[in-house]
Amino acid sequence: MHFNSEQRLDGGVLEREFVLGDIPGILWTPADAPTSTTTTASATATAPAPLILICPPPLGLRKMYPRLAGRARYYAAEYGFAAATIELPGSGERPRWDAAEQARADLRRAMEAGEPVGDEIVDALVLPLVEKAVPEWRAVLDALLSLPGLGGPVGYEGGLISLGVRLALVEPRIAAAGLFAGSLVPAAMFEEARRVTIPLHVLLQWDDEGNDRQASLDLFDAFGSEEKTLHANMGGHTGVPRFELESGARFFARHLTR
Amino acid sequence: MHFNSEQRLDGGVLEREFVLGDIPGILWTPADAPTSTTTTASATATAPAPLILICPPPLGLRKMYPRLAGRARYYAAEYGFAAATIELPGSGERPRWDAAEQARADLRRAMEAGEPVGDEIVDALVLPLVEKAVPEWRAVLDALLSLPGLGGPVGYEGGLISLGVRLALVEPRIAAAGLFAGSLVPAAMFEEARRVTIPLHVLLQWDDEGNDRQASLDLFDAFGSEEKTLHANMGGHTGVPRFELESGARFFARHLTR
Repeated sequence: MHFNSEQRLDGGVLEREFVLGDIPGILWTPADAPTSTTTTASATATAPAPLILICPPPLGLRKMYPRLAGRARYYAAEYGFAAATIELPGSGERPRWDAAEQARADLRRAMEAGEPVGDEIVDALVLPLVEKAVPEWRAVLDALLSLPGLGGPVGYEGGLISLGVRLALVEPRIAAAGLFAGSLVPAAMFEEARRVTIPLHVLLQWDDEGNDRQASLDLFDAFGSEEKTLHANMGGHTGVPRFELESGARFFARHLTR
Repeated sequence: MHFNSEQRLDGGVLEREFVLGDIPGILWTPADAPTSTTTTASATATAPAPLILICPPPLGLRKMYPRLAGRARYYAAEYGFAAATIELPGSGERPRWDAAEQARADLRRAMEAGEPVGDEIVDALVLPLVEKAVPEWRAVLDALLSLPGLGGPVGYEGGLISLGVRLALVEPRIAAAGLFAGSLVPAAMFEEARRVTIPLHVLLQWDDEGNDRQASLDLFDAFGSEEKTLHANMGGHTGVPRFELESGARFFARHLTR
């Protein structure tokens, strides 16, 4: 993991851009967090900060930066959490692959025509992306948790719900997840959802123009977790109320801090 | 309004039992709230505390006291809200009436037989209760808001969702409401729900043994409020997680404090 820029944001939060192999990402740490190995001694004196992995939607980190940085800065400044994000495969400047481009084009065509999005489009769009992304998130997690001041419990949140489902299932270091309900979910992911057991905090936009409400409710129902909460709010896909940022932080605080 | 007992609870919260006519009730006020007219001068110096009306389920105040007092004490000690509750008509020691007793017996019979609860049972059970209760809550509100230190914005919360719907519609002093989703709701209340416009915070227990999930979701959908949030949690009717108490308080804080 190589850091190639850093800046201090409001509240003293340190923002550092990094690359791991060919994966670009951003790490945010609270004002008082140790940042180099010379501070290891004092770092071990206090419990390491929880780390929230924030998965962007597949629209590119640059485009999503204001929203991602806003969330991360809030978590760091108000709750003392570290937060990190990486570019998804095929997003931003990262290389595309033909099958994904084809699936995106098919999705656009179906949505513009007002047709239902077929299972084969959803599978082609989501399953290879999840397959590629999971090992990347796990490798980044390895690297992040070896940094001074990190190494605490891990939460995941993100808009690509299938990736959240898979990571919640296969990555035991993730102790709690905040998910954004969507209906572009391969049927196979419902089976995986039934086997998820970590606490979940699921946001649903009641009048989401891109997602079917009943399918989102069905996916929430499918999760095997004993503690799962659905927060449904009015409005369209991008209309999540600002107060849900605090709700999410408090959910992570309940599960990631002692 | 006549006060007939008072005690200090944890956190200095003052609990006072009262009667208004033949309606018994309880008022809780924060430790530093003025309690007599001699303190009116200092009371006017600070904004009056928000008041939360907590409607008990129709099981009697004595039986529900621990839960009601726990909520009220939390609101008063942690948020500085006043809170009050009254006995519903036909509950506790208050006189029964024949039609309500008949409707309760019909409901029990249907539920024990595992039969669907017919509309005529729901109407007979709920509509007269709402008709009787609404003027009582409004009269108690008049009396409470004339007390020193009260007179601020009002929130309502309660388990009898039809009463919440009606009060939200007809009582303009209620600025926000926390409701517990249920399906024993007269069809006529859906029409009233469409005309409700105040912010709502609705709790739903996903596996509520006494309520139909889809009917509860339909009622949430029906509310006309621009800001309404549904919090769905796992478990049965009485299994609302403890953290929802804080969620509710923060909802009221957003809408009742400046």
